[in-house]
Amino acid sequence: MNLPSKVLEEAVEQLAMLPGVGKRSALRYCLHLLQQDEVTVRDLSESILRLKTHLHHCRVCHNVSDTEVCPICSSDKRQRGLICVVENVQDVMAVENTQQYRGLYHVLGGVISPIDGVGPSDLAITSLIERVQKGNPAHVEEVILALPTTMEGDTTNYYIHKLLQPLGVTVTTLARGVAVGDSLEYADEITLGRSIQHRIPFESQ
Amino acid sequence: MNLPSKVLEEAVEQLAMLPGVGKRSALRYCLHLLQQDEVTVRDLSESILRLKTHLHHCRVCHNVSDTEVCPICSSDKRQRGLICVVENVQDVMAVENTQQYRGLYHVLGGVISPIDGVGPSDLAITSLIERVQKGNPAHVEEVILALPTTMEGDTTNYYIHKLLQPLGVTVTTLARGVAVGDSLEYADEITLGRSIQHRIPFESQ
Repeated sequence: MNLPSKVLEEAVEQLAMLPGVGKRSALRYCLHLLQQDEVTVRDLSESILRLKTHLHHCRVCHNVSDTEVCPICSSDKRQRGLICVVENVQDVMAVENTQQYRGLYHVLGGVISPIDGVGPSDLAITSLIERVQKGNPAHVEEVILALPTTMEGDTTNYYIHKLLQPLGVTVTTLARGVAVGDSLEYADEITLGRSIQHRIPFESQ
Repeated sequence: MNLPSKVLEEAVEQLAMLPGVGKRSALRYCLHLLQQDEVTVRDLSESILRLKTHLHHCRVCHNVSDTEVCPICSSDKRQRGLICVVENVQDVMAVENTQQYRGLYHVLGGVISPIDGVGPSDLAITSLIERVQKGNPAHVEEVILALPTTMEGDTTNYYIHKLLQPLGVTVTTLARGVAVGDSLEYADEITLGRSIQHRIPFESQ
């Protein structure tokens, strides 16, 4: 792309580093910003920088937070004996949006993936084990493994399960089965097979 | 969306103001930025702000420029008697990318559109007339109207043409016809009709 200005070119290049943003979109964003007043652009610029300077990761669960310990970890309205292990911050939001879970979280920051060079030491697994051992912030009764249902997720599930087993804590995983609203016809065989295998009493559905 | 942090929420809201960016994409950008180091995020933040603080509009043609007069207007390698009138900065880039035009530009900043409340006084039309009258930056021989082929573009063409006529300058518009690579079957009737009406000698194709 042949841009008429170095300043514009730089901004386009920087914005094009965002996931799913190409140079053409980045240019569109820049030209849009050019038409805004300076206060608006300054607000955007500052709020982006604040992501790095003012946003923390919770010391306990590693979720993003404005405070050192996040509101979920410090709330006394949550079931503090329950930890839901998720891959990333988005997954915390996904589970929170169900309004079905009142326990705490633990954000791993990824899943074990040798192909991508992600090993157990790159993830917040040690701090999870420590939480269970030390009962931080409270005695842990159950760890729910809510990782993606991929090979990497399964590997990570297995790895964590092995470490947690000697600690005498209940370890569960999410139910896998036919999605609500799906017809059986379109469910894949493995999912359908598991949903038969792990069928539940009719009354508890 | 239920975000775990005010800082994150603000950044998502600011980014979601960009054209075509929803809250979900904005969140994805934010979480991506969270994983980058501070220098990268600071660079992005600063280059966005520089769009407002360091980028100018050329005093002559209103194209974006790092300098008061843009490189095109100040170049002596361009045909300075030729002005191509376009709607916006993107259109300058589009024409430049053809490498077929060596004249100057004039960026109107929009087209006349009563529905959107855009009148002639909102556009850089007066400065265009002045350029032709005063010969800025050089004596103007021809003005090429390269506005969109919409009703608004046609209205603006007509308006500018009426103002330029008394000044004795040649006014032309872009050829309208079948696009290169198109089969006639799929060209719309108006375009095909015009391309017959304005047919050109075979040798000059």
